[in-house]
Amino acid sequence: MSAIEETLERIQKQPGVEAYVILNNEGEILRRMPSMSQEVAEQYANKVKDLVKKAANATRDLNPEDKLKNLRIRTKTKEMLVSFATDSVVIIIQSWSHYMG
Amino acid sequence: MSAIEETLERIQKQPGVEAYVILNNEGEILRRMPSMSQEVAEQYANKVKDLVKKAANATRDLNPEDKLKNLRIRTKTKEMLVSFATDSVVIIIQSWSHYMG
Repeated sequence: MSAIEETLERIQKQPGVEAYVILNNEGEILRRMPSMSQEVAEQYANKVKDLVKKAANATRDLNPEDKLKNLRIRTKTKEMLVSFATDSVVIIIQSWSHYMG
Repeated sequence: MSAIEETLERIQKQPGVEAYVILNNEGEILRRMPSMSQEVAEQYANKVKDLVKKAANATRDLNPEDKLKNLRIRTKTKEMLVSFATDSVVIIIQSWSHYMG
């Protein structure tokens, strides 16, 4: 099993993790959690892609030396963790209440 | 000292906190940390205001029942914590390395 497979396996087993979506730097879906439909994955991809662009630009505008590392979007029911590898964006969606438990 | 003053006093004393800015729901600055210039506060206010709108819309579009609670924007050097009271938005800026220490 490749290092990526192992990482994804580990992510899926974390308590509260509902789904993950991995995008390339153009925002196209590379992988999604098997239990997540392509349609829902695309909805998350589109929303997060815009948000990441806006956050990256804001970071650079506030300080050209700085760079966006990750984003946490906490809502009433979920938390979206968005982090960046060199050539991909990893979105992990976890239920928030469980996360707090 | 009012409850708000006490809270702001406590925030300022947290290790790593560099600044805070409090906006009303229109994105206008209500308060800023005394050591932060009005100009820098306005830069943060404008960037965060846009980001919050985008994140709130994304949250609602993904699930109309859901609602944005807070945002964490971590960059190479800082972390911006954006949380929401009924009629205001609180932005806390802290140095990230110290936060991790």
